[in-house]
Amino acid sequence: MTKWTYCFGGGRAEGRADMKTLLGGKGANLAEMSNLGIAVPPGFTITTEACTYFSEHGDTYPDELRRQAEDALAGIEKIVGARFGSPTGTLLLSVRSGARASMPGMMDTVLNLGLNDDTVDGLAADSGDERFAYDCYRRFIQMYGDVVLGVEHHHFEELLESHKESHGLTLDTDLTAEDWKTLVTAYHTKVEKQLGTPFPQDPEEQLWGAIGAVFGSWMNPRAVTYRRLHGIPGDWGTAVNVQAMVFGNMGEDCATGVCFTRDPSTGENALYGEYLVNAQGEDVVAGIRTPQPITIAEKRANDSDLPAMEEVIPELYHELQDIRGKLEAHYTDMQDLEFTIQRGKLWLLQTRAGKRTANAALKIAVDMVAEGLIDKAEAVRRIDPARLDQLLHPTLDPKAERRVLAKGLPASPGAASGKVVFSAEDAEAWAERGEAVVLVRVETSPEDIGGMHVSEGILTTRGGMTSHAAVVARGMGTPCVAGAGDIRVDHGAKRMMAGGEVIEEGDVITIDGATGEVMLGKVPTIQPELSGDFATLMEWADEVRTMGVYANAETPVDAETARRFGAEGIGLCRTEHMFFQPERILYMRQMIMSKTEAQRREALEKLLPYQRQDFVDLFTIMAGLPVTIRLLDPPLNEFLPTTERDMAELAEAAGVDVAMVKTRAAQLHEGNPMLGHRGCRLGITYPEIYDMQVRAIFEAAVEVSKAGHTVHPEVMIPLVGMKKEFDIVKEAVDRVASDVMAASGVRLDYLVGTMIELPRAALRAGDIAENAQFFSFGTNDLTQTTLGLSRDDAGNIIALYHQKGIFTEDPFITLDQEGVGELVRIAVERGRAARPDLKLGICGEHGGDPASIRFCQSVGLDYVSCSPYRVPIARLAAAQAALDEKADTGD
Amino acid sequence: MTKWTYCFGGGRAEGRADMKTLLGGKGANLAEMSNLGIAVPPGFTITTEACTYFSEHGDTYPDELRRQAEDALAGIEKIVGARFGSPTGTLLLSVRSGARASMPGMMDTVLNLGLNDDTVDGLAADSGDERFAYDCYRRFIQMYGDVVLGVEHHHFEELLESHKESHGLTLDTDLTAEDWKTLVTAYHTKVEKQLGTPFPQDPEEQLWGAIGAVFGSWMNPRAVTYRRLHGIPGDWGTAVNVQAMVFGNMGEDCATGVCFTRDPSTGENALYGEYLVNAQGEDVVAGIRTPQPITIAEKRANDSDLPAMEEVIPELYHELQDIRGKLEAHYTDMQDLEFTIQRGKLWLLQTRAGKRTANAALKIAVDMVAEGLIDKAEAVRRIDPARLDQLLHPTLDPKAERRVLAKGLPASPGAASGKVVFSAEDAEAWAERGEAVVLVRVETSPEDIGGMHVSEGILTTRGGMTSHAAVVARGMGTPCVAGAGDIRVDHGAKRMMAGGEVIEEGDVITIDGATGEVMLGKVPTIQPELSGDFATLMEWADEVRTMGVYANAETPVDAETARRFGAEGIGLCRTEHMFFQPERILYMRQMIMSKTEAQRREALEKLLPYQRQDFVDLFTIMAGLPVTIRLLDPPLNEFLPTTERDMAELAEAAGVDVAMVKTRAAQLHEGNPMLGHRGCRLGITYPEIYDMQVRAIFEAAVEVSKAGHTVHPEVMIPLVGMKKEFDIVKEAVDRVASDVMAASGVRLDYLVGTMIELPRAALRAGDIAENAQFFSFGTNDLTQTTLGLSRDDAGNIIALYHQKGIFTEDPFITLDQEGVGELVRIAVERGRAARPDLKLGICGEHGGDPASIRFCQSVGLDYVSCSPYRVPIARLAAAQAALDEKADTGD
Repeated sequence: MTKWTYCFGGGRAEGRADMKTLLGGKGANLAEMSNLGIAVPPGFTITTEACTYFSEHGDTYPDELRRQAEDALAGIEKIVGARFGSPTGTLLLSVRSGARASMPGMMDTVLNLGLNDDTVDGLAADSGDERFAYDCYRRFIQMYGDVVLGVEHHHFEELLESHKESHGLTLDTDLTAEDWKTLVTAYHTKVEKQLGTPFPQDPEEQLWGAIGAVFGSWMNPRAVTYRRLHGIPGDWGTAVNVQAMVFGNMGEDCATGVCFTRDPSTGENALYGEYLVNAQGEDVVAGIRTPQPITIAEKRANDSDLPAMEEVIPELYHELQDIRGKLEAHYTDMQDLEFTIQRGKLWLLQTRAGKRTANAALKIAVDMVAEGLIDKAEAVRRIDPARLDQLLHPTLDPKAERRVLAKGLPASPGAASGKVVFSAEDAEAWAERGEAVVLVRVETSPEDIGGMHVSEGILTTRGGMTSHAAVVARGMGTPCVAGAGDIRVDHGAKRMMAGGEVIEEGDVITIDGATGEVMLGKVPTIQPELSGDFATLMEWADEVRTMGVYANAETPVDAETARRFGAEGIGLCRTEHMFFQPERILYMRQMIMSKTEAQRREALEKLLPYQRQDFVDLFTIMAGLPVTIRLLDPPLNEFLPTTERDMAELAEAAGVDVAMVKTRAAQLHEGNPMLGHRGCRLGITYPEIYDMQVRAIFEAAVEVSKAGHTVHPEVMIPLVGMKKEFDIVKEAVDRVASDVMAASGVRLDYLVGTMIELPRAALRAGDIAENAQFFSFGTNDLTQTTLGLSRDDAGNIIALYHQKGIFTEDPFITLDQEGVGELVRIAVERGRAARPDLKLGICGEHGGDPASIRFCQSVGLDYVSCSPYRVPIARLAAAQAALDEKADTGD
Repeated sequence: MTKWTYCFGGGRAEGRADMKTLLGGKGANLAEMSNLGIAVPPGFTITTEACTYFSEHGDTYPDELRRQAEDALAGIEKIVGARFGSPTGTLLLSVRSGARASMPGMMDTVLNLGLNDDTVDGLAADSGDERFAYDCYRRFIQMYGDVVLGVEHHHFEELLESHKESHGLTLDTDLTAEDWKTLVTAYHTKVEKQLGTPFPQDPEEQLWGAIGAVFGSWMNPRAVTYRRLHGIPGDWGTAVNVQAMVFGNMGEDCATGVCFTRDPSTGENALYGEYLVNAQGEDVVAGIRTPQPITIAEKRANDSDLPAMEEVIPELYHELQDIRGKLEAHYTDMQDLEFTIQRGKLWLLQTRAGKRTANAALKIAVDMVAEGLIDKAEAVRRIDPARLDQLLHPTLDPKAERRVLAKGLPASPGAASGKVVFSAEDAEAWAERGEAVVLVRVETSPEDIGGMHVSEGILTTRGGMTSHAAVVARGMGTPCVAGAGDIRVDHGAKRMMAGGEVIEEGDVITIDGATGEVMLGKVPTIQPELSGDFATLMEWADEVRTMGVYANAETPVDAETARRFGAEGIGLCRTEHMFFQPERILYMRQMIMSKTEAQRREALEKLLPYQRQDFVDLFTIMAGLPVTIRLLDPPLNEFLPTTERDMAELAEAAGVDVAMVKTRAAQLHEGNPMLGHRGCRLGITYPEIYDMQVRAIFEAAVEVSKAGHTVHPEVMIPLVGMKKEFDIVKEAVDRVASDVMAASGVRLDYLVGTMIELPRAALRAGDIAENAQFFSFGTNDLTQTTLGLSRDDAGNIIALYHQKGIFTEDPFITLDQEGVGELVRIAVERGRAARPDLKLGICGEHGGDPASIRFCQSVGLDYVSCSPYRVPIARLAAAQAALDEKADTGD
């Protein structure tokens, strides 16, 4: 018989933390806390398998479930000493979703379940507070009505508002028990009017309705979108947690709060959070009342004049501290807790690994190693490489002038500038056409996810550090200022008023998620400075990493950045970028306009000194490290002028008329330049171009070598598809190299290799490796040719394919392992078979993508190369990949 | 001990005809003739292995060779009764190259070897003709000087000319023995002056010098180029044939001739050739004297007044006829013979398989089966499929004068003349009024279809063998010369510049699509006539063929042509070509301009009846046979108007302004349309387009089915890369199909499959085949993506790569088996593993290429599909492939 329910509470549980697949994250952790002796409201978890059953059997439950649930409910009743549905000593329940992965706010919750016209009076009697009981009841009707019965929220809100208005009341707290009673009646009437049937009074019916609604919510469009964005499979299903209600709003000795076991922004090893007295959990998150700090330290840090929990209820505060210690020791990770205090008793409602900023993640990981909680390898595993991004990008220049319009909470660190938009939809539309936007909302809701994703920054006027906007923004690494209450937003008119200014849609603002400041216009930024923890963690990563990490760089600035970030060489220097500088482009164009080889050589001769200096700079910066230089790759057409003025200038310089320039451009025009006259095809057509580049490389190498630095040039021949292409160009490279070496008397170690960027090259890797000393996988082009999809033209297609579930990842960001990856695997295998010491790397965009780096490790590449700012990400991802491999092979 | 020499002559030989690898073609056949008792001048062959030794050992000979050659020479002396180097009764030798494959004129020959200042007088005495002897001597010095000593020909020519001039002589025949003596002295002086050493008098030294020169000539640039062009490996080496000289120029009882055992033009079973009395072999070929016919029949046929050999020397003529019979019976093939008559004795100098026209080849093969010389399978093997082309298209009259203006690629066979027009519109207008036109474009696009259809021939200045113009022309059987890059077209002025001529619109040119030549004016052509032998041979081919042969066709005319040529179905119907007719293109464009799906459906609704009728026609013509219909493939941009007038018309029809039309065109513009929004990506973006097409297919199938024909529609989804793409479209196809079938009550057998034209599709063939019922390899696109080479832009690259030896074949004509072929092999293997009854075919241009067809057989495809005019070629090539396979597997 299948076990569909797992009980917990009273210091015991049937489940465990490692049963997340079956019980969901919340359920598994509730069981674990119960096992640890931490007080959680007793309850039971209905498994994710029941959800799957429900979906697959036309929204019906498995037979045994009802009986198992009855037994479990009886267990709760026994622990609590109250009975579900009983008019006195009544047990109320919460029904919450809980999937394997956290999907905050995506699915539904029903609280206070079990209330009806009879039990509400029992609750009034038990609590001694009729107002409380009716407030609970109306909340329940509202929530159940919305979630289970489909009577939309606004119906109830309207009734509440009109009641307040007609009775001259402002705040919910102004309403008396009688007011709530009246509203409960009004709510009942509304529900019956909407549905044609009365609100269900039977607690059993209520319970199964709520369970069904939670299961059903797994498939709601919001949840489906969220899963698509986060790569969560649809067949996981959600569990349902049914628990005895505890109330934080039963009086002044009640409270509710959320906290982190360490500071989620800085990682500081101290309890961090906020709570509200006499409130329900949703009140903290909703941001209607400003929550109070938990610790005195927090209070000081935030200049708050609200009393801290530490001051007000020190004994419960210390109990919370004990629990914090117990959970961290147990989970060996920073936890995000929800708690409720009911009449002086502390109940834990949830624990889970806490979301944190990248900086906090680093500090926590490094601290925990020092504290002996985890080892270095675990610390390395703990950091999501992608999130290092937020440490590596510029922050506001402190010296820059700024006009601060308002201040909110520093909800997610980082600075961002962009044009103001007032809806998630607008954010998506504007971002699509390439605009940087800052999304401004009163508060955000899960519906806004798409717009939040594409925004540079997020600004809300309501809500705290744990509001939806703040949590989600931190998760995404997007700068966010939350609860900037001085700002007034007029959504209809698409404008906001702040600091005496009117900001219209499209005006630029800057937000600083580290200070909470909102500024007018674009404020200059500076380079980030990396903490000692960063360096420590990177050092640990480097200790376990087996692949090299190179950078794609061609300018001295890029090369210096790359070296600063720990690059171990240059994996791709795209020489074409070097020809666009104004003093060079004219010679380049003259070369292209030339009719004879002699003319071309003459123009190239003028480019030689520039090109040589480029390489002198790179070799000097990268002294001792390999520098991989790709010979000219793009079609010549790309260098030709497009404006009439530039054409005229070129015509004059080349001694021809403008018509001739246009004719040449037309000759060079190609229908599909990506598949055209480029790469080594150029070098074979005009060997003098590559001759010049190779001469520049080796003359530079000689010069830098004479200056006392070690130089390792690696000459990379692009777009090879046939062994013979490679051989022809390699022969020329070797010839020029030996000429230069002979002339200078300097011997240089160098390699000649190729990009593998065509399917044919991958298939024929065995031939090509006979003479090629290294392969660098040019996975951008390899993806384009393997998928027959132009990266530049594919935007719409990729978006559509995401939507249709054809792509789960953008293949230009994360390597298509099944297709392109197979070609890489084939090339590695055949290349190494032909030449065991073949050096293998990747220099496509994928070289900086953690999932793709893992793949590179698995196929045995020697290094990855990526943009300078992604070097630390790649170092960490490569370390994790090495650790995984070690784990897999049991080393 | 290695045997380096093989003797022949005197009715015996050490070699045989099947030893071509070792003895070369000439040597092996000389040995064979000798064994057959046919008189050949005695001699010996030095093996190709000696040539290889020579090349690999710094131009030295193996030790044993000299002794073996001495023995062999002694053998010749014995047979002939003369001595090499003896002043009286002197033996003279010829030294000729002879490689495994015929390389006419590529390597060197030395005749009359052994002459020196002493032996020349012996020859004079032996022949009784001093003039003859000195003529021989001066020829020898000239030939040996040029070939062996490197004293160029012109030095001797100049001396001869100046002698003639100063003595008032005109013809060589005017020179006396004294004149030749004087010249021999002058030649000697010249050689000594050039080289610093005298002309070698020692016959031994002469012999080894000549042998070394022949071996050396294997590596001369001419020979290297020839081998590259003809795919002959460089390591084969050449043999050397050393033979006793026989003289056809020793008097009036001497002669020399060449003949074929059957007429090489018609295949008629009769001796055919010509000879010259008192002449050396080179005189026949040189064409200075008009040769005489061999047979009286020839004499009559050619209206010759020269006496035939049959009349003049009937006894030798009959001897030649006997030899002809003996050789044909022995070789079972038509032979090309060289003979010399010295003083009334007939000597055979060479026999080899004779070259012949395609018509002759057919007749000879069919006749020889009737004669019992060969079997049907051998007859099928004998015909080069590629040469059938000339039987199916008009060819230039070989006797006609022609002024060649330029040369392009032979893109679609056949010759055509017509007035030059420079736009498809003009072509249509001119054709309408009855003019024969040749359409000249830089390149063509689908818009030009109408104009291409009515043109006699098509000439483009850009694009390769698989450019749009070439593919479409071949499909229509219209002659086409593509990529004639030397022609400059001025569309504005409606003229073109070629070969120094200015051709105005309306001027007549002729193109030969079999050679790529473009000629001025009208050059007379010969219409093809298909003989009964053709039908017979095709029938025999079909008996052994195991692969099906389908055609690529979309118009009724093409489909009828295909069926007439024996196509067994349609393997590729490109539906996009159907939308360019004037009454349809506007709806197509309206569809593209639509903003909503509803608007698109409205426009598509108007296209539906046309599209349905297209399929009714095709299904009717192809009744009982499969018809594979590819859903819309090209980017929508291709359908949009390019001229202002058409844009205005569209704007009006679509109810928008012209700017909107331009905006939409700009939106649809892609940098690399080949890798863009096309194929099934269109069908997934706008499902309504495919819905319309599928509806048209099945409604047509129902209609034709109701008319009593069997219909086998096969719906082909283009450009699939991911299984899910296929599944999405297939689901829609099945839905529409079952709707139509349900509505009509007619059940149809149909298949849904895909083109395999992306590397990813080939790699993921296993997934895709789970739901795909057939694969058709779209090897045009698969070649483009695998090689990263756009066929439209690749003309220059392919030419360059040929020159550099990177390509031996144009990969768009003959499948790149190592690269693209491996992907095909992978796809076949994985596809069949997933679905054993998967139907497999090819519909790229390669489907009509014999070498590629052989590959298709080897990987186990079920059918090939090609343009209608190539169907007979494919049938024959497929038959040969099947025979080869049978031979390989020993069945």
